[in-house]
Amino acid sequence: MPHVDLNADMGESFGAWKMGDDAALLKIVTSANIACGGHAGDADVMAATMTMAHSNGVGIGAHPGFMDIAGFGRNRMSVPRGTLQNQVRYQVAASLGMARSVGAEVRHLKLHGAMANMCAEDEDMARDLYEAALSVAPDLIVMVLAATAQQSAVEKLGCLWAGEIFADRAYNDDATLVDRSLPGAVIHDADHAGARMVEMVQAGAIITESGKHIPTRIDTICLHGDTAEAVAIAASVRRQLEAADVPLHRFDGHRAS
Amino acid sequence: MPHVDLNADMGESFGAWKMGDDAALLKIVTSANIACGGHAGDADVMAATMTMAHSNGVGIGAHPGFMDIAGFGRNRMSVPRGTLQNQVRYQVAASLGMARSVGAEVRHLKLHGAMANMCAEDEDMARDLYEAALSVAPDLIVMVLAATAQQSAVEKLGCLWAGEIFADRAYNDDATLVDRSLPGAVIHDADHAGARMVEMVQAGAIITESGKHIPTRIDTICLHGDTAEAVAIAASVRRQLEAADVPLHRFDGHRAS
Amino acid sequence: MPHVDLNADMGESFGAWKMGDDAALLKIVTSANIACGGHAGDADVMAATMTMAHSNGVGIGAHPGFMDIAGFGRNRMSVPRGTLQNQVRYQVAASLGMARSVGAEVRHLKLHGAMANMCAEDEDMARDLYEAALSVAPDLIVMVLAATAQQSAVEKLGCLWAGEIFADRAYNDDATLVDRSLPGAVIHDADHAGARMVEMVQAGAIITESGKHIPTRIDTICLHGDTAEAVAIAASVRRQLEAADVPLHRFDGHRAS
Amino acid sequence: MPHVDLNADMGESFGAWKMGDDAALLKIVTSANIACGGHAGDADVMAATMTMAHSNGVGIGAHPGFMDIAGFGRNRMSVPRGTLQNQVRYQVAASLGMARSVGAEVRHLKLHGAMANMCAEDEDMARDLYEAALSVAPDLIVMVLAATAQQSAVEKLGCLWAGEIFADRAYNDDATLVDRSLPGAVIHDADHAGARMVEMVQAGAIITESGKHIPTRIDTICLHGDTAEAVAIAASVRRQLEAADVPLHRFDGHRAS
Repeated sequence: MPHVDLNADMGESFGAWKMGDDAALLKIVTSANIACGGHAGDADVMAATMTMAHSNGVGIGAHPGFMDIAGFGRNRMSVPRGTLQNQVRYQVAASLGMARSVGAEVRHLKLHGAMANMCAEDEDMARDLYEAALSVAPDLIVMVLAATAQQSAVEKLGCLWAGEIFADRAYNDDATLVDRSLPGAVIHDADHAGARMVEMVQAGAIITESGKHIPTRIDTICLHGDTAEAVAIAASVRRQLEAADVPLHRFDGHRAS
Repeated sequence: MPHVDLNADMGESFGAWKMGDDAALLKIVTSANIACGGHAGDADVMAATMTMAHSNGVGIGAHPGFMDIAGFGRNRMSVPRGTLQNQVRYQVAASLGMARSVGAEVRHLKLHGAMANMCAEDEDMARDLYEAALSVAPDLIVMVLAATAQQSAVEKLGCLWAGEIFADRAYNDDATLVDRSLPGAVIHDADHAGARMVEMVQAGAIITESGKHIPTRIDTICLHGDTAEAVAIAASVRRQLEAADVPLHRFDGHRAS
Repeated sequence: MPHVDLNADMGESFGAWKMGDDAALLKIVTSANIACGGHAGDADVMAATMTMAHSNGVGIGAHPGFMDIAGFGRNRMSVPRGTLQNQVRYQVAASLGMARSVGAEVRHLKLHGAMANMCAEDEDMARDLYEAALSVAPDLIVMVLAATAQQSAVEKLGCLWAGEIFADRAYNDDATLVDRSLPGAVIHDADHAGARMVEMVQAGAIITESGKHIPTRIDTICLHGDTAEAVAIAASVRRQLEAADVPLHRFDGHRAS
Repeated sequence: MPHVDLNADMGESFGAWKMGDDAALLKIVTSANIACGGHAGDADVMAATMTMAHSNGVGIGAHPGFMDIAGFGRNRMSVPRGTLQNQVRYQVAASLGMARSVGAEVRHLKLHGAMANMCAEDEDMARDLYEAALSVAPDLIVMVLAATAQQSAVEKLGCLWAGEIFADRAYNDDATLVDRSLPGAVIHDADHAGARMVEMVQAGAIITESGKHIPTRIDTICLHGDTAEAVAIAASVRRQLEAADVPLHRFDGHRAS
């Protein structure tokens, strides 16, 4: 029986501003991608979120993004590659030390927002940024969007990695996500979201809108917690996987054979 | 014969803006206090400065300050203590990982600007911030302004520390610095600066304007490199210490007995 | 019959982060203090909030603070006076132009957070910052905390001003606010808050915890909207003033005689 | 006889960091493009630079860019158009008010860095950003890179504009700049730079590397001041235009007929 991990972005509050219901999500997920102060998060938010994740037995990941707080890391930016690598190093480094100071540990890496989207399309960029992160922490498990250029990058690097699918997004037949502007692209029904995750995990494949099966590693499922609906979907995914006797725990990293 | 270390702040460029002549200073000093992105520095500047310090055999220190790039960490700020501790943790953490990624290592801590000044007056604040830094890296050697509240703090903490005096500032009889607004407060003559450093190091004491000797540990001398005059003073201090056969190398940390 | 204005801070969202229920508050208040990007707010938030205030017939005020987004302008900072004046000019200038671009107009000024608190204690600082704002827009009405150093400053400047009291804070006999750490300092009961505002407006005086009356101009009442409780208090104050036939509309500025 | 204006970017220092020799440039140019705090500059730098420009009789322009201090506005960013318009409004607004507070006035607009480059290629983007600026200050003269999409945009808008050529960059036959990576792309010889500017101004045309003449309005010549060489080129351009009896003064805006 395959087991699976449930992950979500968190620690994305900033200063006086709150975002998401991290406490609720930490009861559901097994891994947390915690912002590092680049696109969101600050030193207080990181310390509090890491402490809370650690005490819930949830695995901690560094979640770097473009250093653009005002744009929440959602703007694509033409940052020179070497600079961008240093910015990833900086954020990963900050995560590692903050975790150590609260008695926890960073075990995985997940890129955020526009940076992640660009790396899903550009294998060279993905490899450069992953190498930068690994130069700070060689044993990080790199979480990749399954079947994208991110996955090609980790396979070539030979680093530890884990493949991720989305609970609330429909897939095209080439494993890309259905564009948000199209009907059905985002799944709002919690029951449906849970059922299809069980189906994909048991099939070991992404199942597209047309019904096509794309075999892939499914190590972890991406959940969200920024709205009440999102938390309901997250809870439903967990409930239905448990009902189907799919073991839920932190992913193991694996290397390309 | 006592030996002594020479230290200077560096890595204080930011983005498109340059500050100081770090390459020149690295030929003179034995320890470098490298900004961590709080008051100055960025990921590129940190990586480049650490690489250059490491290849010159110069010891690397984390140099955190108030997170106020626009004010260069010179404004006193009433940041809540717990938040300030997390900001110090964040900066020290970033330093450690950036150093690791370039094959180097952070061995000491020196506070910057207004944060340092406040800690020279407030032992509790100093202790809280040092504890925060040590929660990330327990073996850091804490560089303190000799004979101030910073020194009291490290003595009570029992951590590794090193005591610092200034090459270019005159001292009052209570070991505080003569106010910058007073004549003679800042020493501009390179020969004079060098001569008095030899005298103080050989005496094992701060020598005040009135001629009073205040015995203290002198593990390191603070130099500057932001102007041509400053680099000339730094070079003179090094030259005269060498002429007096004072061995120059990185300080060892020591603990209060 | 005295008339009175109701004001609240708003436009304090930032990037991806929301704060407060500005739409609800704009149905209650007659003046809005809109953040200018210093401690909160950004260009989008300013444009949207000013547009919404204007279409609700609510008077628009510039609400500058320390340029410390990460600290929400709540940290006291020792910014050199001339620099601080320029930062106030910059924020007021941005407000004026943003308002013009949406067909609206800035008519008043209210300082934010730590900057306001410092000016309530320090008449020189208040005067310097008000002068800075007036150098950009000479006809601004300066909203001051009644009976504090802010009021002394505007009286000496001879500029247009309006005096403010708080709906949800208890007063000491010297017209300062009861410290937040003391019981009763913050008023949580909406009915009580409304009743005491009617009483103070009709008396033309701050009424302290001990029952003492401190006669003062009450041109406007400060409401909050950051919590559901705060909005309920705001609504109650408006309702009870209306029930007592106190006319509610934007304050007029007046000059010291 | 045609007259021409000489312009340069300035006010690009930030906090503790200096950039460029603005005082020297202000003796040479007739218009100054002054950063607004988006990509560079801060409230102090703006006030000081505007004061200095005004007292030298130099025309003041708002010089907005991407709000990316760390990247100096050189990174292309996919900021949503409406947000970018508001960011331009904000910066122009700040410029206008800062100028007013020092007794000066903003008369033109010039976009900075990556924002300007994108607008030289994308007429829609140029028009949207110019409209945003004009919504704050309808009488601004928009400075455009002659014969690019920037010029097409102002011609369609019907606003006041002025056309600009570069003193130190070689041109391709389609009026674009020779890529910096190619030999001869950047002109380092001050005499040569001056001579070709005289030639182009007298011809009323951009003269390309191949010798082709592209007739265009030449209202102003862009100079730089960030290096000693740049200041020497700027001085040479001025000297040779004077020697050729080309009148040098601020451009007039004109509208498309």
